[in-house]
Amino acid sequence: VLGLDPDPARLWPSAVKAAESRAAADEAAPDGLAGSAAAVRAARAVVSHCRLVLEATAAECVAVKPQVACFERLGAAGWAALEQVVGAAREHGLLVIADAKRGDIDVTAAAYGQAFFGPVPTPFGSVPGLGVDALTVNPLLGRDSLLPLVSAARATGAGLFVLVRTSNPGAADVQDRALQDGGTVSDRLAALVAALGADGTGAAGISDIGAVAGATAPEHLERLRRAMPTTPFLLPGVGAQGGSVTDLAAAFAPGPAGGLVAASRAIVYAFEKSGGPPQQAARAEAARLRELTWAVARQP
Amino acid sequence: VLGLDPDPARLWPSAVKAAESRAAADEAAPDGLAGSAAAVRAARAVVSHCRLVLEATAAECVAVKPQVACFERLGAAGWAALEQVVGAAREHGLLVIADAKRGDIDVTAAAYGQAFFGPVPTPFGSVPGLGVDALTVNPLLGRDSLLPLVSAARATGAGLFVLVRTSNPGAADVQDRALQDGGTVSDRLAALVAALGADGTGAAGISDIGAVAGATAPEHLERLRRAMPTTPFLLPGVGAQGGSVTDLAAAFAPGPAGGLVAASRAIVYAFEKSGGPPQQAARAEAARLRELTWAVARQP
Repeated sequence: VLGLDPDPARLWPSAVKAAESRAAADEAAPDGLAGSAAAVRAARAVVSHCRLVLEATAAECVAVKPQVACFERLGAAGWAALEQVVGAAREHGLLVIADAKRGDIDVTAAAYGQAFFGPVPTPFGSVPGLGVDALTVNPLLGRDSLLPLVSAARATGAGLFVLVRTSNPGAADVQDRALQDGGTVSDRLAALVAALGADGTGAAGISDIGAVAGATAPEHLERLRRAMPTTPFLLPGVGAQGGSVTDLAAAFAPGPAGGLVAASRAIVYAFEKSGGPPQQAARAEAARLRELTWAVARQP
Repeated sequence: VLGLDPDPARLWPSAVKAAESRAAADEAAPDGLAGSAAAVRAARAVVSHCRLVLEATAAECVAVKPQVACFERLGAAGWAALEQVVGAAREHGLLVIADAKRGDIDVTAAAYGQAFFGPVPTPFGSVPGLGVDALTVNPLLGRDSLLPLVSAARATGAGLFVLVRTSNPGAADVQDRALQDGGTVSDRLAALVAALGADGTGAAGISDIGAVAGATAPEHLERLRRAMPTTPFLLPGVGAQGGSVTDLAAAFAPGPAGGLVAASRAIVYAFEKSGGPPQQAARAEAARLRELTWAVARQP
Protein backbone atom coordinates (compact mmCIF):
# COMPACT_ATOMS: atom_id res chain seq x y z
CA VAL A 1 0.00 0.00 0.00
CA LEU A 2 1.44 3.32 -1.11
CA GLY A 3 1.10 5.92 1.63
CA LEU A 4 0.69 9.45 0.32
CA ASP A 5 1.59 11.97 3.04
CA PRO A 6 2.47 14.99 0.90
CA ASP A 7 4.35 17.70 2.76
CA PRO A 8 4.02 20.93 0.75
CA ALA A 9 7.51 21.88 1.93
CA ARG A 10 9.06 18.61 0.72
CA LEU A 11 7.46 17.74 -2.63
CA TRP A 12 9.28 16.27 -5.59
CA PRO A 13 10.98 19.22 -7.32
CA SER A 14 9.30 18.55 -10.66
CA ALA A 15 5.88 18.82 -8.99
CA VAL A 16 6.70 22.26 -7.64
CA LYS A 17 7.94 23.33 -11.08
CA ALA A 18 4.74 22.02 -12.70
CA ALA A 19 2.60 24.02 -10.29
CA GLU A 20 4.73 27.14 -10.86
CA SER A 21 4.44 26.93 -14.63
CA ARG A 22 0.70 26.27 -14.43
CA ALA A 23 0.31 29.34 -12.21
CA ALA A 24 2.31 31.46 -14.63
CA ALA A 25 0.52 30.12 -17.71
CA ASP A 26 -3.15 30.42 -16.86
CA GLU A 27 -4.56 31.13 -13.45
CA ALA A 28 -7.95 31.71 -15.09
CA ALA A 29 -8.62 28.11 -16.14
CA PRO A 30 -10.65 26.64 -13.30
CA ASP A 31 -9.40 23.38 -11.87
CA GLY A 32 -11.74 23.09 -8.89
CA LEU A 33 -9.35 24.62 -6.39
CA ALA A 34 -10.25 27.65 -4.29
CA GLY A 35 -8.46 29.43 -1.46
CA SER A 36 -5.55 31.84 -1.02
CA ALA A 37 -3.05 32.01 -3.90
CA ALA A 38 -0.43 30.17 -1.82
CA ALA A 39 -2.91 27.45 -0.79
CA VAL A 40 -4.14 26.92 -4.36
CA ARG A 41 -0.59 26.74 -5.76
CA ALA A 42 0.56 24.42 -3.00
CA ALA A 43 -2.51 22.22 -3.52
CA ARG A 44 -1.75 22.03 -7.25
CA ALA A 45 1.82 21.04 -6.47
CA VAL A 46 0.53 18.39 -4.04
CA VAL A 47 -1.69 16.94 -6.78
CA SER A 48 1.21 16.95 -9.28
CA HIS A 49 3.46 15.29 -6.72
CA CYS A 50 0.93 12.56 -5.92
CA ARG A 51 0.28 11.95 -9.63
CA LEU A 52 4.00 11.53 -10.25
CA VAL A 53 4.37 9.14 -7.30
CA LEU A 54 1.34 7.16 -8.51
CA GLU A 55 2.68 6.94 -12.06
CA ALA A 56 6.00 5.67 -10.72
CA THR A 57 4.67 3.08 -8.27
CA ALA A 58 1.04 2.12 -9.05
CA ALA A 59 2.08 -1.09 -10.83
CA GLU A 60 3.76 -2.29 -7.62
CA CYS A 61 0.80 -1.51 -5.32
CA VAL A 62 -2.71 -2.72 -4.55
CA ALA A 63 -3.95 0.41 -2.82
CA VAL A 64 -3.11 3.98 -1.95
CA LYS A 65 -3.42 5.41 1.54
CA PRO A 66 -3.69 9.21 1.47
CA GLN A 67 -3.00 10.80 4.87
CA VAL A 68 -5.91 13.23 5.21
CA ALA A 69 -4.04 15.54 7.62
CA CYS A 70 -1.56 16.36 4.89
CA PHE A 71 -4.31 17.61 2.60
CA GLU A 72 -6.41 19.24 5.31
CA ARG A 73 -3.57 21.59 6.19
CA LEU A 74 -4.16 23.38 2.88
CA GLY A 75 -7.80 24.04 3.78
CA ALA A 76 -10.48 23.91 1.08
CA ALA A 77 -7.86 23.74 -1.67
CA GLY A 78 -6.24 20.81 0.10
CA TRP A 79 -9.55 18.96 0.36
CA ALA A 80 -10.10 19.51 -3.39
CA ALA A 81 -6.58 18.16 -3.97
CA LEU A 82 -7.49 15.07 -1.93
CA GLU A 83 -10.54 14.51 -4.15
CA GLN A 84 -8.32 14.76 -7.22
CA VAL A 85 -5.73 12.37 -5.81
CA VAL A 86 -8.46 9.84 -4.99
CA GLY A 87 -9.59 10.12 -8.62
CA ALA A 88 -6.03 9.68 -9.89
CA ALA A 89 -5.56 6.56 -7.76
CA ARG A 90 -8.76 5.10 -9.23
CA GLU A 91 -7.47 5.81 -12.76
CA HIS A 92 -4.51 3.60 -11.85
CA GLY A 93 -6.89 0.85 -10.69
CA LEU A 94 -5.91 1.18 -7.04
CA LEU A 95 -8.10 0.83 -3.96
CA VAL A 96 -8.19 3.92 -1.75
CA ILE A 97 -7.79 3.79 2.05
CA ALA A 98 -8.38 7.24 3.58
CA ASP A 99 -6.07 7.51 6.58
CA ALA A 100 -8.09 9.89 8.73
CA LYS A 101 -8.39 8.07 12.08
CA ARG A 102 -11.82 9.54 12.69
CA GLY A 103 -13.91 8.67 15.74
CA ASP A 104 -16.79 10.45 17.46
CA ILE A 105 -20.24 9.93 19.01
CA ASP A 106 -22.91 8.27 16.87
CA VAL A 107 -24.46 11.29 15.14
CA THR A 108 -21.00 12.68 14.31
CA ALA A 109 -19.68 9.28 13.24
CA ALA A 110 -22.58 9.17 10.78
CA ALA A 111 -21.44 12.56 9.41
CA TYR A 112 -17.91 11.19 8.95
CA GLY A 113 -19.47 8.18 7.23
CA GLN A 114 -21.16 10.56 4.80
CA ALA A 115 -17.92 12.51 4.29
CA PHE A 116 -15.81 9.47 3.38
CA PHE A 117 -18.31 6.99 1.91
CA GLY A 118 -21.25 9.25 0.91
CA PRO A 119 -23.88 10.10 -0.04
CA VAL A 120 -24.81 13.32 1.79
CA PRO A 121 -28.48 14.32 1.36
CA THR A 122 -28.95 18.09 0.97
CA PRO A 123 -31.91 20.26 -0.11
CA PHE A 124 -29.98 20.86 -3.35
CA GLY A 125 -29.43 17.22 -4.26
CA SER A 126 -27.12 14.50 -3.09
CA VAL A 127 -23.40 15.18 -2.54
CA PRO A 128 -21.31 12.06 -3.22
CA GLY A 129 -18.69 12.21 -0.41
CA LEU A 130 -15.10 11.18 -1.01
CA GLY A 131 -16.09 7.63 -1.99
CA VAL A 132 -13.14 5.72 -0.60
CA ASP A 133 -12.83 1.93 -0.26
CA ALA A 134 -11.80 2.06 3.39
CA LEU A 135 -11.24 4.50 6.22
CA THR A 136 -9.02 4.27 9.29
CA VAL A 137 -11.00 4.92 12.48
CA ASN A 138 -10.24 5.46 16.18
CA PRO A 139 -12.20 3.24 18.61
CA LEU A 140 -11.57 5.13 21.89
CA LEU A 141 -15.27 6.09 22.03
CA GLY A 142 -16.40 2.44 21.90
CA ARG A 143 -18.73 0.26 19.91
CA ASP A 144 -21.62 2.70 19.46
CA SER A 145 -19.23 5.21 17.91
CA LEU A 146 -18.11 2.66 15.30
CA LEU A 147 -21.51 1.28 14.27
CA PRO A 148 -22.54 4.23 12.03
CA LEU A 149 -19.17 3.98 10.26
CA VAL A 150 -19.61 0.22 9.78
CA SER A 151 -23.06 0.84 8.28
CA ALA A 152 -21.86 3.64 6.01
CA ALA A 153 -18.93 1.54 4.79
CA ARG A 154 -21.04 -1.58 4.18
CA ALA A 155 -23.69 0.40 2.29
CA THR A 156 -21.08 1.16 -0.40
CA GLY A 157 -19.16 -2.13 -0.30
CA ALA A 158 -16.31 -0.45 1.58
CA GLY A 159 -14.58 -1.26 4.86
CA LEU A 160 -12.85 0.14 7.93
CA PHE A 161 -9.43 -0.26 9.56
CA VAL A 162 -9.79 0.24 13.30
CA LEU A 163 -6.76 1.31 15.36
CA VAL A 164 -5.76 -1.62 17.57
CA ARG A 165 -2.01 -1.28 18.14
CA THR A 166 -0.40 1.70 16.42
CA SER A 167 3.17 2.04 15.15
CA ASN A 168 4.41 4.89 17.37
CA PRO A 169 6.40 4.50 20.63
CA GLY A 170 3.64 6.31 22.58
CA ALA A 171 1.21 3.50 21.71
CA ALA A 172 2.50 1.89 24.90
CA ASP A 173 1.08 4.75 27.05
CA VAL A 174 -2.54 3.68 26.60
CA GLN A 175 -2.86 0.71 24.21
CA ASP A 176 -0.41 -1.58 26.05
CA ARG A 177 -1.87 -0.96 29.53
CA ALA A 178 -2.87 -4.20 31.27
CA LEU A 179 -6.57 -4.48 32.17
CA GLN A 180 -7.79 -5.83 35.47
CA ASP A 181 -9.80 -8.61 33.79
CA GLY A 182 -6.89 -9.72 31.59
CA GLY A 183 -5.16 -8.60 28.44
CA THR A 184 -4.33 -5.05 27.38
CA VAL A 185 -6.36 -2.16 26.03
CA SER A 186 -5.28 -3.32 22.54
CA ASP A 187 -6.63 -6.79 23.28
CA ARG A 188 -9.94 -5.21 24.26
CA LEU A 189 -9.96 -3.25 21.00
CA ALA A 190 -9.13 -6.44 19.10
CA ALA A 191 -12.17 -8.18 20.62
CA LEU A 192 -14.33 -5.21 19.60
CA VAL A 193 -12.99 -5.38 16.04
CA ALA A 194 -13.45 -9.14 15.77
CA ALA A 195 -17.08 -8.85 16.94
CA LEU A 196 -17.86 -5.99 14.53
CA GLY A 197 -16.32 -7.88 11.63
CA ALA A 198 -17.95 -11.23 12.27
CA ASP A 199 -20.99 -10.32 10.12
CA GLY A 200 -18.74 -9.01 7.37
CA THR A 201 -16.49 -11.98 6.72
CA GLY A 202 -16.89 -13.03 3.10
CA ALA A 203 -16.33 -16.19 1.12
CA ALA A 204 -12.57 -15.57 1.01
CA GLY A 205 -12.42 -15.68 4.81
CA ILE A 206 -11.47 -12.00 5.20
CA SER A 207 -13.63 -9.49 7.04
CA ASP A 208 -14.64 -6.00 5.90
CA ILE A 209 -13.59 -4.59 9.29
CA GLY A 210 -9.80 -4.46 9.47
CA ALA A 211 -7.31 -3.49 12.14
CA VAL A 212 -4.35 -1.13 12.15
CA ALA A 213 -1.42 -3.03 13.67
CA GLY A 214 1.89 -1.19 13.47
CA ALA A 215 4.74 -2.98 11.70
CA THR A 216 7.08 -1.52 14.32
CA ALA A 217 5.74 -3.80 17.09
CA PRO A 218 5.60 -7.26 15.49
CA GLU A 219 5.72 -8.90 18.94
CA HIS A 220 2.00 -8.15 19.22
CA LEU A 221 1.00 -9.59 15.85
CA GLU A 222 0.62 -13.27 16.76
CA ARG A 223 -1.60 -12.49 19.74
CA LEU A 224 -3.68 -10.01 17.73
CA ARG A 225 -4.03 -12.50 14.87
CA ARG A 226 -5.41 -15.14 17.28
CA ALA A 227 -7.92 -12.60 18.61
CA MET A 228 -8.94 -11.47 15.10
CA PRO A 229 -8.63 -14.54 12.84
CA THR A 230 -10.40 -13.10 9.76
CA THR A 231 -9.44 -9.44 10.14
CA PRO A 232 -7.22 -7.84 7.47
CA PHE A 233 -4.31 -6.04 9.11
CA LEU A 234 -3.13 -2.68 7.82
CA LEU A 235 0.55 -2.61 8.74
CA PRO A 236 2.05 0.89 8.67
CA GLY A 237 5.50 1.82 9.91
CA VAL A 238 7.74 -0.04 7.45
CA GLY A 239 10.86 1.92 6.54
CA ALA A 240 10.94 5.46 7.96
CA GLN A 241 9.42 4.32 11.27
CA GLY A 242 11.74 1.30 11.54
CA GLY A 243 9.39 -1.63 10.81
CA SER A 244 10.56 -4.59 8.72
CA VAL A 245 8.41 -6.65 6.34
CA THR A 246 10.09 -9.92 7.29
CA ASP A 247 8.73 -9.65 10.87
CA LEU A 248 5.10 -9.58 9.74
CA ALA A 249 4.41 -13.23 8.90
CA ALA A 250 1.70 -13.62 11.55
CA ALA A 251 -0.46 -11.07 9.77
CA PHE A 252 -0.76 -13.33 6.73
CA ALA A 253 -2.19 -16.38 8.55
CA PRO A 254 -5.61 -16.13 6.83
CA GLY A 255 -3.91 -15.83 3.42
CA PRO A 256 -1.93 -13.27 1.42
CA ALA A 257 -4.75 -10.71 1.75
CA GLY A 258 -4.56 -10.88 5.54
CA GLY A 259 -1.90 -8.17 5.62
CA LEU A 260 -1.53 -4.85 3.83
CA VAL A 261 1.99 -3.49 4.19
CA ALA A 262 1.94 0.30 4.01
CA ALA A 263 4.98 2.44 3.27
CA SER A 264 5.08 6.11 2.48
CA ARG A 265 8.27 8.05 3.18
CA ALA A 266 10.39 4.93 2.49
CA ILE A 267 9.10 4.98 -1.11
CA VAL A 268 8.60 8.68 -1.81
CA TYR A 269 11.96 9.81 -0.42
CA ALA A 270 13.94 6.75 -1.57
CA PHE A 271 15.86 9.03 -3.98
CA GLU A 272 17.39 10.93 -1.05
CA LYS A 273 19.22 7.75 -0.07
CA SER A 274 19.78 6.11 -3.45
CA GLY A 275 20.31 9.19 -5.61
CA GLY A 276 18.92 9.35 -9.16
CA PRO A 277 15.49 10.56 -10.26
CA PRO A 278 12.73 10.35 -7.58
CA GLN A 279 10.45 8.34 -9.91
CA GLN A 280 13.03 5.64 -10.51
CA ALA A 281 14.04 5.36 -6.85
CA ALA A 282 10.40 5.22 -5.74
CA ARG A 283 9.55 2.49 -8.25
CA ALA A 284 12.59 0.44 -7.21
CA GLU A 285 11.77 0.71 -3.49
CA ALA A 286 8.07 -0.08 -4.06
CA ALA A 287 9.07 -3.13 -6.13
CA ARG A 288 11.51 -4.26 -3.43
CA LEU A 289 8.84 -3.97 -0.71
CA ARG A 290 6.25 -5.74 -2.91
CA GLU A 291 8.62 -8.68 -3.47
CA LEU A 292 9.53 -8.87 0.22
CA THR A 293 5.84 -8.75 1.15
CA TRP A 294 4.85 -11.50 -1.27
CA ALA A 295 7.71 -13.68 -0.06
CA VAL A 296 6.43 -13.36 3.52
CA ALA A 297 2.73 -13.53 2.60
CA ARG A 298 3.14 -16.76 0.62
CA GLN A 299 5.01 -18.64 3.33
CA PRO A 300 2.99 -21.66 4.44
CA VAL B 1 -20.35 27.07 24.26
CA LEU B 2 -22.50 27.01 21.16
CA GLY B 3 -22.03 23.75 19.26
CA LEU B 4 -22.46 24.12 15.51
CA ASP B 5 -23.16 20.69 13.96
CA PRO B 6 -24.93 21.77 10.76
CA ASP B 7 -26.81 18.96 9.02
CA PRO B 8 -27.43 20.06 5.40
CA ALA B 9 -30.70 18.11 5.51
CA ARG B 10 -31.91 19.90 8.67
CA LEU B 11 -30.93 23.57 8.36
CA TRP B 12 -33.08 26.49 9.45
CA PRO B 13 -35.55 27.06 6.58
CA SER B 14 -34.52 30.69 6.08
CA ALA B 15 -30.90 29.58 5.51
CA VAL B 16 -31.98 27.23 2.74
CA LYS B 17 -34.05 30.01 1.16
CA ALA B 18 -31.10 32.42 1.35
CA ALA B 19 -28.85 29.92 -0.42
CA GLU B 20 -31.51 29.29 -3.07
CA SER B 21 -31.97 32.95 -3.83
CA ARG B 22 -28.23 33.54 -3.92
CA ALA B 23 -27.87 30.67 -6.38
CA ALA B 24 -30.65 32.06 -8.55
CA ALA B 25 -29.36 35.63 -8.40
CA ASP B 26 -25.71 35.34 -9.23
CA GLU B 27 -23.71 32.15 -9.40
CA ALA B 28 -20.89 34.07 -11.05
CA ALA B 29 -19.88 36.17 -8.03
CA PRO B 30 -17.09 34.21 -6.39
CA ASP B 31 -17.49 33.53 -2.68
CA GLY B 32 -14.57 31.17 -2.19
CA LEU B 33 -16.62 28.00 -2.57
CA ALA B 34 -15.80 25.32 -5.15
CA GLY B 35 -17.23 21.88 -5.80
CA SER B 36 -20.32 20.34 -7.37
CA ALA B 37 -23.37 22.62 -7.67
CA ALA B 38 -25.15 20.72 -4.89
CA ALA B 39 -22.12 20.88 -2.59
CA VAL B 40 -21.60 24.61 -3.17
CA ARG B 41 -25.28 25.43 -2.58
CA ALA B 42 -25.42 23.24 0.50
CA ALA B 43 -22.23 24.83 1.82
CA ARG B 44 -23.71 28.30 1.29
CA ALA B 45 -26.84 27.24 3.15
CA VAL B 46 -24.65 25.87 5.97
CA VAL B 47 -22.85 29.21 6.24
CA SER B 48 -26.18 31.11 6.25
CA HIS B 49 -27.55 28.76 8.90
CA CYS B 50 -24.50 29.17 11.14
CA ARG B 51 -24.55 32.96 10.71
CA LEU B 52 -28.21 33.05 11.76
CA VAL B 53 -27.56 30.83 14.79
CA LEU B 54 -24.57 33.00 15.75
CA GLU B 55 -26.59 36.22 15.41
CA ALA B 56 -29.30 34.75 17.61
CA THR B 57 -27.09 33.34 20.36
CA ALA B 58 -23.59 34.94 20.33
CA ALA B 59 -24.45 37.32 23.18
CA GLU B 60 -25.21 34.34 25.43
CA CYS B 61 -21.99 32.41 24.61
CA VAL B 62 -18.28 32.59 25.21
CA ALA B 63 -17.21 30.30 22.38
CA VAL B 64 -18.42 28.37 19.37
CA LYS B 65 -17.60 24.71 18.77
CA PRO B 66 -17.96 23.80 15.10
CA GLN B 67 -18.16 20.03 14.54
CA VAL B 68 -15.68 19.52 11.70
CA ALA B 69 -17.35 16.30 10.47
CA CYS B 70 -20.46 18.28 9.56
CA PHE B 71 -18.48 20.56 7.26
CA GLU B 72 -16.14 17.87 5.92
CA ARG B 73 -19.09 15.94 4.49
CA LEU B 74 -19.49 18.70 1.88
CA GLY B 75 -15.90 18.25 0.69
CA ALA B 76 -13.85 21.27 -0.36
CA ALA B 77 -16.93 23.52 -0.31
CA GLY B 78 -17.64 22.37 3.23
CA TRP B 79 -14.11 23.17 4.35
CA ALA B 80 -14.45 26.65 2.84
CA ALA B 81 -17.75 26.99 4.72
CA LEU B 82 -15.95 26.05 7.94
CA GLU B 83 -13.37 28.79 7.31
CA GLN B 84 -16.21 31.30 6.80
CA VAL B 85 -18.03 30.17 9.95
CA VAL B 86 -14.82 30.52 11.99
CA GLY B 87 -14.52 34.07 10.62
CA ALA B 88 -18.16 34.83 11.48
CA ALA B 89 -17.67 33.57 15.06
CA ARG B 90 -14.66 35.88 15.43
CA GLU B 91 -16.75 38.84 14.19
CA HIS B 92 -19.06 38.10 17.13
CA GLY B 93 -16.08 38.12 19.49
CA LEU B 94 -16.32 34.40 20.25
CA LEU B 95 -13.51 31.95 20.85
CA VAL B 96 -13.45 29.01 18.41
CA ILE B 97 -13.02 25.38 19.52
CA ALA B 98 -12.68 23.10 16.48
CA ASP B 99 -14.32 19.79 17.42
CA ALA B 100 -12.30 17.44 15.24
CA LYS B 101 -11.03 14.80 17.70
CA ARG B 102 -7.81 14.37 15.72
CA GLY B 103 -5.04 12.05 16.82
CA ASP B 104 -2.18 10.40 14.93
CA ILE B 105 1.54 9.63 15.08
CA ASP B 106 3.95 12.54 15.57
CA VAL B 107 4.60 13.61 11.99
CA THR B 108 0.87 13.48 11.20
CA ALA B 109 -0.09 15.19 14.45
CA ALA B 110 2.22 18.01 13.36
CA ALA B 111 0.29 18.22 10.07
CA TYR B 112 -3.01 18.46 12.00
CA GLY B 113 -1.38 21.15 14.13
CA GLN B 114 -0.63 23.08 10.94
CA ALA B 115 -4.19 22.53 9.65
CA PHE B 116 -5.91 23.87 12.75
CA PHE B 117 -3.42 26.35 14.24
CA GLY B 118 -1.15 27.12 11.26
CA PRO B 119 1.04 28.22 9.68
CA VAL B 120 1.81 25.78 6.85
CA PRO B 121 5.09 26.50 5.03
CA THR B 122 4.87 25.93 1.26
CA PRO B 123 7.15 26.85 -1.67
CA PHE B 124 4.51 29.45 -2.60
CA GLY B 125 4.38 31.20 0.76
CA SER B 126 2.83 30.47 4.10
CA VAL B 127 -0.75 29.16 4.36
CA PRO B 128 -2.41 30.30 7.59
CA GLY B 129 -4.38 27.19 8.66
CA LEU B 130 -7.80 27.46 10.25
CA GLY B 131 -6.47 29.51 13.18
CA VAL B 132 -8.73 28.23 15.94
CA ASP B 133 -8.34 28.89 19.67
CA ALA B 134 -8.60 25.23 20.63
CA LEU B 135 -8.93 21.78 19.10
CA THR B 136 -10.39 18.57 20.50
CA VAL B 137 -7.93 15.68 20.23
CA ASN B 138 -7.97 11.92 20.74
CA PRO B 139 -5.21 10.52 23.02
CA LEU B 140 -5.43 6.80 22.11
CA LEU B 141 -1.98 7.00 20.47
CA GLY B 142 -0.35 8.27 23.65
CA ARG B 143 1.82 11.14 24.79
CA ASP B 144 4.14 11.39 21.77
CA SER B 145 1.11 11.79 19.50
CA LEU B 146 -0.11 14.77 21.55
CA LEU B 147 3.19 16.67 21.91
CA PRO B 148 3.24 18.17 18.37
CA LEU B 149 -0.34 19.36 18.89
CA VAL B 150 0.57 20.91 22.25
CA SER B 151 3.49 22.73 20.58
CA ALA B 152 1.40 23.92 17.65
CA ALA B 153 -1.34 25.19 19.96
CA ARG B 154 1.07 26.96 22.34
CA ALA B 155 2.91 28.63 19.45
CA THR B 156 -0.29 30.55 18.66
CA GLY B 157 -1.59 31.04 22.20
CA ALA B 158 -4.22 28.34 21.64
CA GLY B 159 -5.07 25.16 23.54
CA LEU B 160 -6.33 21.60 23.30
CA PHE B 161 -9.20 19.62 24.77
CA VAL B 162 -8.14 15.98 25.11
CA LEU B 163 -10.81 13.25 25.22
CA VAL B 164 -10.84 11.78 28.72
CA ARG B 165 -14.39 10.54 29.32
CA THR B 166 -16.80 11.10 26.43
CA SER B 167 -20.56 11.66 26.56
CA ASN B 168 -21.75 8.56 24.65
CA PRO B 169 -22.91 5.27 26.20
CA GLY B 170 -20.13 3.37 24.35
CA ALA B 171 -17.53 5.35 26.30
CA ALA B 172 -17.83 2.55 28.87
CA ASP B 173 -16.48 -0.02 26.35
CA VAL B 174 -12.92 1.27 26.51
CA GLN B 175 -12.62 4.40 28.69
CA ASP B 176 -14.22 2.87 31.80
CA ARG B 177 -12.19 -0.36 31.73
CA ALA B 178 -10.33 -0.98 35.00
CA LEU B 179 -6.55 -1.15 34.71
CA GLN B 180 -4.44 -3.71 36.52
CA ASP B 181 -2.42 -1.07 38.34
CA GLY B 182 -5.48 0.86 39.49
CA GLY B 183 -8.02 3.28 38.03
CA THR B 184 -9.60 3.18 34.60
CA VAL B 185 -8.41 4.01 31.10
CA SER B 186 -10.00 7.45 31.61
CA ASP B 187 -7.97 7.92 34.79
CA ARG B 188 -4.84 7.09 32.83
CA LEU B 189 -5.82 9.66 30.19
CA ALA B 190 -6.50 12.19 32.95
CA ALA B 191 -2.97 11.71 34.32
CA LEU B 192 -1.58 12.21 30.81
CA VAL B 193 -3.58 15.43 30.42
CA ALA B 194 -2.60 16.78 33.84
CA ALA B 195 1.09 16.17 33.07
CA LEU B 196 0.88 17.81 29.63
CA GLY B 197 -0.91 20.82 31.06
CA ALA B 198 1.35 21.39 34.05
CA ASP B 199 3.67 23.66 32.05
CA GLY B 200 0.72 25.56 30.63
CA THR B 201 -1.11 26.62 33.77
CA GLY B 202 -1.29 30.40 33.82
CA ALA B 203 -1.75 33.06 36.50
CA ALA B 204 -5.50 32.37 36.65
CA GLY B 205 -4.84 28.76 37.66
CA ILE B 206 -6.26 27.26 34.48
CA SER B 207 -4.20 25.17 32.07
CA ASP B 208 -4.04 25.48 28.28
CA ILE B 209 -4.56 21.71 27.96
CA GLY B 210 -8.20 20.89 28.67
CA ALA B 211 -10.19 17.69 28.90
CA VAL B 212 -13.42 16.56 27.29
CA ALA B 213 -15.62 15.15 30.05
CA GLY B 214 -19.14 14.32 28.96
CA ALA B 215 -21.97 16.03 30.83
CA THR B 216 -23.93 12.76 30.56
CA ALA B 217 -21.69 10.97 33.09
CA PRO B 218 -21.33 13.46 35.97
CA GLU B 219 -20.46 10.61 38.37
CA HIS B 220 -16.93 10.75 36.93
CA LEU B 221 -16.43 14.49 37.29
CA GLU B 222 -15.30 14.70 40.93
CA ARG B 223 -12.67 12.01 40.42
CA LEU B 224 -11.47 13.58 37.15
CA ARG B 225 -11.34 17.02 38.78
CA ARG B 226 -9.10 15.67 41.54
CA ALA B 227 -6.78 14.12 38.93
CA MET B 228 -6.72 17.31 36.83
CA PRO B 229 -6.99 20.24 39.27
CA THR B 230 -6.17 23.06 36.81
CA THR B 231 -7.60 21.55 33.63
CA PRO B 232 -10.55 23.29 31.95
CA PHE B 233 -13.31 20.78 31.23
CA LEU B 234 -15.26 20.90 27.99
CA LEU B 235 -18.63 19.41 28.92
CA PRO B 236 -20.65 18.30 25.89
CA GLY B 237 -23.86 16.31 26.02
CA VAL B 238 -26.24 18.77 27.67
CA GLY B 239 -29.76 18.59 26.26
CA ALA B 240 -30.10 16.29 23.23
CA GLN B 241 -27.76 13.70 24.78
CA GLY B 242 -29.44 13.88 28.21
CA GLY B 243 -26.87 15.74 30.34
CA SER B 244 -27.96 18.34 32.87
CA VAL B 245 -26.07 21.52 33.82
CA THR B 246 -26.96 21.22 37.51
CA ASP B 247 -24.94 17.99 37.80
CA LEU B 248 -21.69 19.62 36.71
CA ALA B 249 -20.61 21.53 39.83
CA ALA B 250 -17.37 19.54 40.26
CA ALA B 251 -16.07 20.89 36.95
CA PHE B 252 -16.06 24.45 38.33
CA ALA B 253 -13.83 23.76 41.35
CA PRO B 254 -10.92 25.88 40.01
CA GLY B 255 -13.33 28.75 39.25
CA PRO B 256 -16.06 29.65 36.78
CA ALA B 257 -13.69 29.10 33.84
CA GLY B 258 -13.05 25.52 34.93
CA GLY B 259 -16.02 24.27 32.94
CA LEU B 260 -17.29 25.00 29.43
CA VAL B 261 -20.84 23.73 28.97
CA ALA B 262 -21.42 22.88 25.32
CA ALA B 263 -24.85 22.52 23.75
CA SER B 264 -25.70 22.25 20.09
CA ARG B 265 -28.94 20.56 19.10
CA ALA B 266 -30.63 21.70 22.35
CA ILE B 267 -30.16 25.31 21.17
CA VAL B 268 -30.41 25.06 17.40
CA TYR B 269 -33.54 22.89 17.35
CA ALA B 270 -35.22 24.49 20.40
CA PHE B 271 -37.93 25.84 18.07
CA GLU B 272 -39.08 22.31 17.27
CA LYS B 273 -40.13 21.94 20.91
CA SER B 274 -41.14 25.49 21.78
CA GLY B 275 -42.58 26.64 18.45
CA GLY B 276 -42.01 30.17 17.19
CA PRO B 277 -39.13 31.45 15.06
CA PRO B 278 -35.87 29.41 15.30
CA GLN B 279 -33.84 32.53 16.20
CA GLN B 280 -36.03 33.42 19.15
CA ALA B 281 -36.17 29.85 20.50
CA ALA B 282 -32.40 29.43 20.13
CA ARG B 283 -31.69 32.70 21.97
CA ALA B 284 -34.07 31.76 24.78
CA GLU B 285 -32.53 28.30 25.23
CA ALA B 286 -28.96 29.66 25.07
CA ALA B 287 -29.87 32.28 27.69
CA ARG B 288 -31.47 29.65 29.90
CA LEU B 289 -28.38 27.42 29.71
CA ARG B 290 -26.07 30.38 30.34
CA GLU B 291 -28.00 31.34 33.48
CA LEU B 292 -28.06 27.75 34.72
CA THR B 293 -24.34 27.42 34.06
CA TRP B 294 -23.43 30.62 35.90
CA ALA B 295 -25.59 29.60 38.84
CA VAL B 296 -23.68 26.32 39.12
CA ALA B 297 -20.27 27.85 38.28
CA ARG B 298 -20.54 30.55 40.98
CA GLN B 299 -21.46 28.18 43.79
CA PRO B 300 -18.78 28.24 46.49
